[in-house]
Amino acid sequence: MATPATANRPTPERIFKTLNAYQQTAALRTAIELDVFSAIGAGANTSAALAAKTGAAEKGVRILCDYLTVQGFLIKEQGRYALTQESAIFLDRKSAACLGSMAGFLGTGFAKSNFDSLTEAVRKGGSVWREGHDNTKPNDEFWVAFAKSMAPLTVPSAEFISGLLRAEEGKPTKVLDIAAGHGMYGITVARKNPEAEIVALDWPNVLQVAQENAKKFGVADRYSVRAGSAFETEMGSGYDHVLLTNIFHHFDTAGCETLMRRVHEALKPGGKAITLEFVPNEDRVTPPVAASFSLVMLTNTDAGDAYTFSEYEKMFRNAGFAKSTLHPVPEMPQQVIVSEKSA
Amino acid sequence: MATPATANRPTPERIFKTLNAYQQTAALRTAIELDVFSAIGAGANTSAALAAKTGAAEKGVRILCDYLTVQGFLIKEQGRYALTQESAIFLDRKSAACLGSMAGFLGTGFAKSNFDSLTEAVRKGGSVWREGHDNTKPNDEFWVAFAKSMAPLTVPSAEFISGLLRAEEGKPTKVLDIAAGHGMYGITVARKNPEAEIVALDWPNVLQVAQENAKKFGVADRYSVRAGSAFETEMGSGYDHVLLTNIFHHFDTAGCETLMRRVHEALKPGGKAITLEFVPNEDRVTPPVAASFSLVMLTNTDAGDAYTFSEYEKMFRNAGFAKSTLHPVPEMPQQVIVSEKSA
Repeated sequence: MATPATANRPTPERIFKTLNAYQQTAALRTAIELDVFSAIGAGANTSAALAAKTGAAEKGVRILCDYLTVQGFLIKEQGRYALTQESAIFLDRKSAACLGSMAGFLGTGFAKSNFDSLTEAVRKGGSVWREGHDNTKPNDEFWVAFAKSMAPLTVPSAEFISGLLRAEEGKPTKVLDIAAGHGMYGITVARKNPEAEIVALDWPNVLQVAQENAKKFGVADRYSVRAGSAFETEMGSGYDHVLLTNIFHHFDTAGCETLMRRVHEALKPGGKAITLEFVPNEDRVTPPVAASFSLVMLTNTDAGDAYTFSEYEKMFRNAGFAKSTLHPVPEMPQQVIVSEKSA
Repeated sequence: MATPATANRPTPERIFKTLNAYQQTAALRTAIELDVFSAIGAGANTSAALAAKTGAAEKGVRILCDYLTVQGFLIKEQGRYALTQESAIFLDRKSAACLGSMAGFLGTGFAKSNFDSLTEAVRKGGSVWREGHDNTKPNDEFWVAFAKSMAPLTVPSAEFISGLLRAEEGKPTKVLDIAAGHGMYGITVARKNPEAEIVALDWPNVLQVAQENAKKFGVADRYSVRAGSAFETEMGSGYDHVLLTNIFHHFDTAGCETLMRRVHEALKPGGKAITLEFVPNEDRVTPPVAASFSLVMLTNTDAGDAYTFSEYEKMFRNAGFAKSTLHPVPEMPQQVIVSEKSA
């Protein structure tokens, strides 16, 4: 079928939309902060009712909700707002799947102010945020915020990893969770496998969040911690599995190899290193989320990147793992790399 | 045709994309600042060549260009980057239609920092940027940046307005251009009609930009200026047309009426007020660009808004104009309202 000529005529629409895209972030964050979605879910569906419920000006709420309607987060009919299916599931705090806490991390101060210096970061080829103090250094405040905000997101990947480790078979297993953060990857294994013992490694204040979660999910008796850097702290040994979730992308290839060599040493023969990562294809421009992640690392780390599978395979081989295999996490933008230590 | 169930399963994809949307703005601005598009247009199509040409790190340029490819601004094939048709037309500085200068205004300091306080603006129902000093007050620096950046954008609307005024008929015409900015609306009328005399009104430093443009386009001999506020400066009288382009959205309805009453007085009988505006439909959520503009006014002005046509019609009636008519500008998100003073 022929496409009408006008449909292909270039317009500057995408350029405008992109130059104003920061407004979308601000609007969604504000709506989450004011808890507008929960208020609408609870029946406050006019700007007057929402103003009363949120304590905001009626004009402010009306303009915000209209904007959110344009962006597809709300429905407006006869002057009344309603949640979309997506907003009801992921943005109303009474929903179990609510992701509202992510707004406490994504699009906030640290990452956002680094993006204000993106031009300098591109010039330099790395973060310009306080030389030598990028987010790979001890930064409890940042990583505590991360741990508290991002836990809801981990569910599909954590379940997938537990499945890969056959946690439900219930065999005695010793798991090291490196850069544990909220701890949910290790905790999920422990929940599925009553015979699993988890050792979590992270900065001291971050480990408090992980320990709280271990308690909350009833696995605290099988949960111990090691505080400090993944590059320096004594890791212990004889592990069946070592989890490396979202850590390699912060470092250069030499750093990744060093870390993976330590992991190789900590594993028992036949043990597996489990890496969760954004892994772009070899073209580095697909799939979109994994490929875009490089830019986040450019602005936020001294030397990090989103590495391709061939790059990981080479680094892990140099660290002693003869073979690695790639496993896409269903419906998520990340992938798992399984690397087995020779028996 | 039945849609597969999974196609309708809600995912948090849009939420993530929106919380990270500010990164899109940063990436495009950085690419324009480093003039990456012109460099690619000139044949530097690998990260190494682009690094050499822009003075940026190769890793930085590679990650930026990959991200721009994901966003649809570049094409990548066999490791080489190429401009899309859209980027070649609107982002390569050697193109006559290049809009790169807009990045000097959109998504920069002033507007962006106001959006950092969006939550407070929604609470208050207006800008929190230095109470009483929003962008409707004399702010030469801001409006000079605007005037210099946004001129390329005015072409289609300026041509459309000239057509509505039948400028090409060449009748003697006296035109007042209120809040002239870059001056391109009045200047376009003057270019089409050698018998048109233009009076431009704006803040003093902004008028310098307009006068430079009048000179550049060869109409300086028929171009005079009145410096000051549209609410206080003596406007003169006997005008055939008064242009009010992108001004009303900065004020509350009382302010709009006051201004329009002054315009009514300045027009000769049968003269026309020509308003160019973002005019959302009565539902305030369509069409997208006009409807979204309310949020920009909420954050940047004390009392502005994107008004619907029925609101404008009422304000203009109160100001003395019995009838107003609405005219969409082809392929642009704005509309023109023509209001005639009784003969």
